[in-house]
Amino acid sequence: MDSEQPLDEKSRRAIEGSAYYGGKIETVPKVPVRSLDDFSVWYTPGVAAVSRAIEKEADLSFEYTNRWNTIAVLTDGSRVLGLGNVGPEASTPVMEGKALIYKYLGGVDAIPIPVRATTEDKLVGIAEALEPAFGGINLEDIASPKCFGVLERLRESMNIPVWHDDQQGTAGVILAALYNALEVTGRSLDRSKIVFFGSGAANIATARLLIGAGAPAGEIILVDSKGTLHAEREDIDQLLLKNRWKYEMALKTNPSKVKGGLREALKGADVLIAASTPGPDIVKREDIAVMAKRPVTFLLSNPVPEMWPDEAKKAGAAVVATGRSDFPNQVNNSVLFPAVFRGALDARAKTISDTMVIAAAKELASFSREKGVSDTNIIPNMLDWGVFPSVAATIGEEAQREGLARKSRTRDELLASARITMERARRVSSFLMEKGIIQPPPQDWESAR
Amino acid sequence: MDSEQPLDEKSRRAIEGSAYYGGKIETVPKVPVRSLDDFSVWYTPGVAAVSRAIEKEADLSFEYTNRWNTIAVLTDGSRVLGLGNVGPEASTPVMEGKALIYKYLGGVDAIPIPVRATTEDKLVGIAEALEPAFGGINLEDIASPKCFGVLERLRESMNIPVWHDDQQGTAGVILAALYNALEVTGRSLDRSKIVFFGSGAANIATARLLIGAGAPAGEIILVDSKGTLHAEREDIDQLLLKNRWKYEMALKTNPSKVKGGLREALKGADVLIAASTPGPDIVKREDIAVMAKRPVTFLLSNPVPEMWPDEAKKAGAAVVATGRSDFPNQVNNSVLFPAVFRGALDARAKTISDTMVIAAAKELASFSREKGVSDTNIIPNMLDWGVFPSVAATIGEEAQREGLARKSRTRDELLASARITMERARRVSSFLMEKGIIQPPPQDWESAR
Repeated sequence: MDSEQPLDEKSRRAIEGSAYYGGKIETVPKVPVRSLDDFSVWYTPGVAAVSRAIEKEADLSFEYTNRWNTIAVLTDGSRVLGLGNVGPEASTPVMEGKALIYKYLGGVDAIPIPVRATTEDKLVGIAEALEPAFGGINLEDIASPKCFGVLERLRESMNIPVWHDDQQGTAGVILAALYNALEVTGRSLDRSKIVFFGSGAANIATARLLIGAGAPAGEIILVDSKGTLHAEREDIDQLLLKNRWKYEMALKTNPSKVKGGLREALKGADVLIAASTPGPDIVKREDIAVMAKRPVTFLLSNPVPEMWPDEAKKAGAAVVATGRSDFPNQVNNSVLFPAVFRGALDARAKTISDTMVIAAAKELASFSREKGVSDTNIIPNMLDWGVFPSVAATIGEEAQREGLARKSRTRDELLASARITMERARRVSSFLMEKGIIQPPPQDWESAR
Repeated sequence: MDSEQPLDEKSRRAIEGSAYYGGKIETVPKVPVRSLDDFSVWYTPGVAAVSRAIEKEADLSFEYTNRWNTIAVLTDGSRVLGLGNVGPEASTPVMEGKALIYKYLGGVDAIPIPVRATTEDKLVGIAEALEPAFGGINLEDIASPKCFGVLERLRESMNIPVWHDDQQGTAGVILAALYNALEVTGRSLDRSKIVFFGSGAANIATARLLIGAGAPAGEIILVDSKGTLHAEREDIDQLLLKNRWKYEMALKTNPSKVKGGLREALKGADVLIAASTPGPDIVKREDIAVMAKRPVTFLLSNPVPEMWPDEAKKAGAAVVATGRSDFPNQVNNSVLFPAVFRGALDARAKTISDTMVIAAAKELASFSREKGVSDTNIIPNMLDWGVFPSVAATIGEEAQREGLARKSRTRDELLASARITMERARRVSSFLMEKGIIQPPPQDWESAR
């Protein structure tokens, strides 16, 4: 397929570039070192006074160290991209890439922490032990259903925000895009029939967030490889044991117990959210044809969507979104997670609640609406820098409103500090390139672009 | 005391500066981000190919990610500086300071990882789980005897270098300084009587390293708060249970079972290595007076040595070393640990053996000898940049000689790569200051200097 071609070149560059640069992020001093004398302030003997102050009040570690801006990108490598359980070492390039985006778009210092942990308990234990080192934790690429338990337990036990991007991030961006897709097609969330195709971490988390945002659970149907999910499905008892989160969805959704597969579920549906298997031709034109008129279709599998967007359009879809940057309406977590953590860190939030995510999704959606929403413009992209500080400020404000913030800051203060930190990160990156500290890429990259 | 005065100013600056800069290190990109297109190389979809390659061969994570240059500065906060068990949060400023020095002097990316871990088993478990994320682990500020068990177990179980700076680092620098102190006073290691005052992590580790370097165990006496250590001391059975490492030293050293305290142990001794309690007047002139003529005295407690150097000199000491930068002969781990890890990382060493540390100590010592050794110049200081690449190369060479290195590199290659990486780190630091990305310190710092 022609549209697959660029991936090969990107793969080649990724391998060559990773070896050439020896990784994607590094540490630098944040403080002046003008002479060795300065070390006696930043290290012994001066530093002892800082430790003593934090010993008296542990939260001062957010003021006196970089903890306020540092998060772990934590994984066990059990479900890396579409590659599966490749293990922690092999996950590192992905965690580094995430850390790069966190810094570049959010000004957040993110540290790749791929760990050897085979059980949920062990992963939870490590995350809890790491709490003093970090201002937040971004869980990444953890297999389902383990990821549900890990996130739930850590949100309960920890006093720093714990975020699983494959759940909350994906759900938040989908919600943002959905707000505008519904707007474009004259619908509203509380009166739409929504079908989820696939019931992994992303779709389970999205269904939960949508319900939290006002979508009626009774109008939702989830479909997995065995068909529609409902309270009387024959494997329901196994589900209770194996995947409590999916089980709860089975009880809550599809009250009329529609049976069958995707086609049956889609009858008269307004929205399809597919996060199932890389396509194309996993969803067919005939599937779209049975939906309500001018339906909304999110076809989110990577690298290839469940069906090509033009096919979906031909089948009647009014709005199509995918996970890809080469089609309109990319549902891309990168427009959300850096800003969410920027806001959470600036407010010294203790957690990131679902309502905070919903508020951030609304902020993203209204940014696109102000620019003029249409069937090919339902969600900001990574170049829409302007929206990131607003999303950060919204997260910070909402954390305060819910009593989850350590700091009290006005929206203007949050906006300003997010802007400063984000712009500084991009400026540093440009400087390092200008100065040749980051060398230009191998020459043949240019010609091959 | 007059010499205490500067500490107060340094403490004030440390607190003010830590808040002003919000920590001491941060992350920056190592790769160019020229447009969003680059993210599709550094992140999905390109990155998948890198993960696949590492999945096939885990050691490629040292080539394709920054793992090759990244270590954890890991602590449970159980013995931070002279402050005791202040806990992980309060240890963070110290870990950050260490990370700053690692980068500035060694070009090593060091990540502060203060963890909540109350038992030895838990700390060991966390370190082992973190192995995929790091190219090495620097243990820091862990209480004795827990630190012995942690280091011993991790050196056994892990395939990356694990270093406890309070043991190996201190021991290595003491050995380097001792080589030259013995030279200056016409002695040799294999024919010197050595008394250790204090039997914490530093002195136990130093005694072990000195024995490894050829000091006869039979000529060594350790003294703790209960007096001289020997095989028949009444608490010997308790020692076996509580501190196996100290117990082993009790069996191995002081074969003539000299009883009493420091004074008794020092009779006729050539060398005193004190790492006991901050002074002054912990060691007395009368103690030095009973030693051999022109003895060597290392008075290493901080912030105040066990006795003031001029007192020791008046009592007959030919060479005096302390832990302080404001006296000659500072025994300062910073001249060793950044270079040791530079060399270990460049050779992709799997561990740092005692013989590697001994080789590094010899390299340090010979650098001072080339400059002309004297009673006030027995050890390089942090301004002696020239020696660091040599120490790194020696570590890398020795790792290869012992079959502990993943990479095969000549001494010249090791020297060149250490020099490039170290110089680059200092250049980045200068450049960030020049560009105002690192702001100048508060104005009153200058006037107060």
